[in-house]
Amino acid sequence: MRALLLVSTAAALIGAAPPQKLATPTDIVTAAPASAWKTIPADDLLVLDLQNGGRVVVQLAPDFTPVHVANVKALARASYWAGATVYRVQDNYVAQWGNNDSEKPWPQGVTPKPPAEYWRAMDGLVITPLGSPDPYAPAAGFANGWPVAYSPKDGWATLAHCYATVGVGRGLDPDTGTGGELYAVIGHAPRHMDRNLAVVGRVIEGIDRLSSLPRGTEALGFYKDKAQYVPISALRLASQMPVADRPAFEYLDTSSASFADYLRVRANRNDDFYKRPAGGVDLCNVQVPIRRKVTGERG
Amino acid sequence: MRALLLVSTAAALIGAAPPQKLATPTDIVTAAPASAWKTIPADDLLVLDLQNGGRVVVQLAPDFTPVHVANVKALARASYWAGATVYRVQDNYVAQWGNNDSEKPWPQGVTPKPPAEYWRAMDGLVITPLGSPDPYAPAAGFANGWPVAYSPKDGWATLAHCYATVGVGRGLDPDTGTGGELYAVIGHAPRHMDRNLAVVGRVIEGIDRLSSLPRGTEALGFYKDKAQYVPISALRLASQMPVADRPAFEYLDTSSASFADYLRVRANRNDDFYKRPAGGVDLCNVQVPIRRKVTGERG
Repeated sequence: MRALLLVSTAAALIGAAPPQKLATPTDIVTAAPASAWKTIPADDLLVLDLQNGGRVVVQLAPDFTPVHVANVKALARASYWAGATVYRVQDNYVAQWGNNDSEKPWPQGVTPKPPAEYWRAMDGLVITPLGSPDPYAPAAGFANGWPVAYSPKDGWATLAHCYATVGVGRGLDPDTGTGGELYAVIGHAPRHMDRNLAVVGRVIEGIDRLSSLPRGTEALGFYKDKAQYVPISALRLASQMPVADRPAFEYLDTSSASFADYLRVRANRNDDFYKRPAGGVDLCNVQVPIRRKVTGERG
Repeated sequence: MRALLLVSTAAALIGAAPPQKLATPTDIVTAAPASAWKTIPADDLLVLDLQNGGRVVVQLAPDFTPVHVANVKALARASYWAGATVYRVQDNYVAQWGNNDSEKPWPQGVTPKPPAEYWRAMDGLVITPLGSPDPYAPAAGFANGWPVAYSPKDGWATLAHCYATVGVGRGLDPDTGTGGELYAVIGHAPRHMDRNLAVVGRVIEGIDRLSSLPRGTEALGFYKDKAQYVPISALRLASQMPVADRPAFEYLDTSSASFADYLRVRANRNDDFYKRPAGGVDLCNVQVPIRRKVTGERG
């Protein structure tokens, strides 16, 4: 593995034609320097503990949907989700959780009718282009560690609905949802949801705890009986947990040289197993590398 | 719903600009005439019954991978898979089944080392273009009811790896696999596998029985203990079953006017829920409509 990796790095440095055998994406991530990794703040981690023992960790995206994310944080801090469940699991689509039909009043600090944060201005984002065509938007790439679709002409950028993306359930448009009911994508990227629903983050650990749940048999994958609802024992921010217990993560800076290398190899798999590189890649098949931090989060 | 549908149909007939509200994809499928549906032969249906009661039905694709599909059929007829299990479930990737490390000899009629059926000639296929760019191939579309990637310049066409696609497990290239070990995609389309693995079909019913299985914790999603293997009680062709028991399906002809209409709406969702149509769609987000035939298969 090391030999392949050196070849790849050398090629990148001197701008030579790509070697016949590229490093694997894993090789590149493993070799990325510490400086290429960015810590995710504990206040941007929503930790969902299922009563059956599984844990799901969501990274929030305040740079993209500030009001909806602020709502999610206010709901977590107010223990709004005490007694919440996963009540909808639709195959190749989404798992959804919250209080469902509850009439609970919104806690203080929640904006009940947030603005339509379906996209933001490109201004202020450093975007690394995907380099492949995107069927859903004029362009696609990565900004602040996130997969984005964007329009250089019109100046908008939006978080893309990929596998594990977390968004805000809502009623009929123009309702944008408050943040009490959230869904995670558990199937092929439903990119038609881009700019139609507010994305607040992505599952960075434990998505399999949602994707392996039994599918609901009612329309849209809702569970038929409340007995099937999957109880959530705790739903809070990592920053609400004792420091020693907090999960801590870091992501590969999407404007780093390591990420550029990773992106290139993702689009040109050519190793012992893959012999016909595509020369292109789908936005949602370039998962931004995220890993546990070895040292605990300290603030 | 009927009113919306009439508007859409009228627009298609007179070539007018699309109305502001389009019919939903479901509206169009429901309204498709009987002549737009094609029956899938019972000999092209592989029926996998899990011991836990779930059934998974795979449509085989002899037009694309004739030798591998012939192998699958020969294996089914020879009861090669007696005692088979699902032994690998990797999140956002594949579920895989077969006899795993068995040393069972290949039955008669099986080609142990099939040719590299990673693509076929475009010649002889009627392809309906997707009409959106594809990140993985010069072009994408639909032929004989299947999603395909193709190259008009080089003349090849290949079945695309979408959600529920079924392919042949193999070792390192140039081994193409014999067909004894099969996988189904249970996550975001791993299109980099196109032209690197032989696709023999797709799951048309019961994919949720595979996608909701617990994920394996070993490398590549293999189950750690054999006790976790999911037993398969029967794995046979529908044509091997008593006529009255055979599941029967039909698919929407991908060269029909109904399919063209369906494709257009898939790329331009604009209804009570979706307000910002993308104007494009990913190949794997246009699932070819498939439904149970009301009358039993009689041939």
